[in-house]
Formats: sequence, structure tokens, C-alpha cells
Amino acid sequence: MKARVHVTLKNGVLDPQGKAIGNALAGLGFGGVGDVRQGKFIELDIAETDAAKAREQVEQMCKRLLANTVIENYSIELG
Amino acid sequence: MKARVHVTLKNGVLDPQGKAIGNALAGLGFGGVGDVRQGKFIELDIAETDAAKAREQVEQMCKRLLANTVIENYSIELG
Repeated sequence: MKARVHVTLKNGVLDPQGKAIGNALAGLGFGGVGDVRQGKFIELDIAETDAAKAREQVEQMCKRLLANTVIENYSIELG
Repeated sequence: MKARVHVTLKNGVLDPQGKAIGNALAGLGFGGVGDVRQGKFIELDIAETDAAKAREQVEQMCKRLLANTVIENYSIELG
């Protein structure tokens, strides 16, 4: 089963990487670009075939390794 | 309009970051984890309200800044 995880900074947490992208886009002449936020996207192949168990396993992975839950949110898609 | 861009390494391109995540997960005792790939996820607020024009603009951003099209794929979602 494939799991797709998005890890994004929480609202209110400064995102210098996103800011840098926004500035670079403005420098390239792209107008009308407002807020830019950069996050991580992780694709995992997991052996577990039961959706509920797989979600629980990936949740644990997020909490223990993939996301820093103090400043980051995560979301999980399976399939 | 919000644009969500995924930038992922092309198949066949070595992904050391993904490998490191896979090894760390195994080290934490998560079994049954196969291939892991890490990509980038970028959220942009753009002023353009016409979907076709917005997509064209974000395509240009991807080609010129956000993705290295030699080794990376990108996908765009609007809305």
C-alpha cells in the first residue's frame, strides 16, 4: 500500500524557505504572488494492506520521525 | 487562488533523503517499509483568478525556479 504524507509548517510559524521562493519569484518577474509556504512530501511503500492499520502505522511514523509536531502539521493519504 | 505544487524526483534518480528516512524508520522498529521517496510541496497564493492563466503561470514558475526538470517532475493543483 502506498502512503503519501504532507508535512507543513503550522500557521504562524515563520517559513524562511517559502519567503525565499516568494522573493525569487518576484525577482524573476512573476507578479501577484502572495504568501508562499514550503513543506515536505513523503511517499512510502508499506507492506500493511489493512487501511486502518496502515493509517495507524503511518501516524506513528509521523509523530516519531517524519514531523516535528511542535511546529509542523502532517496529513496522510493512503491508496 | 491557491496553487499546490508537488516536486518529486524522477524514477531512477537516486533519493538519498528518502533512503535515510527508510533506514531511520527501520531503526525505530517500523517493519514492512519498502521504498521511501521524499519530495517538496509548495503552496502559493496567486492573484490570478482565471484557472487556465493561473496554471500557465505556475507551470512557468515550476520550469524556471521550483523544479529542476532534468531530474524532477512537478504536478500542479489549483483551487
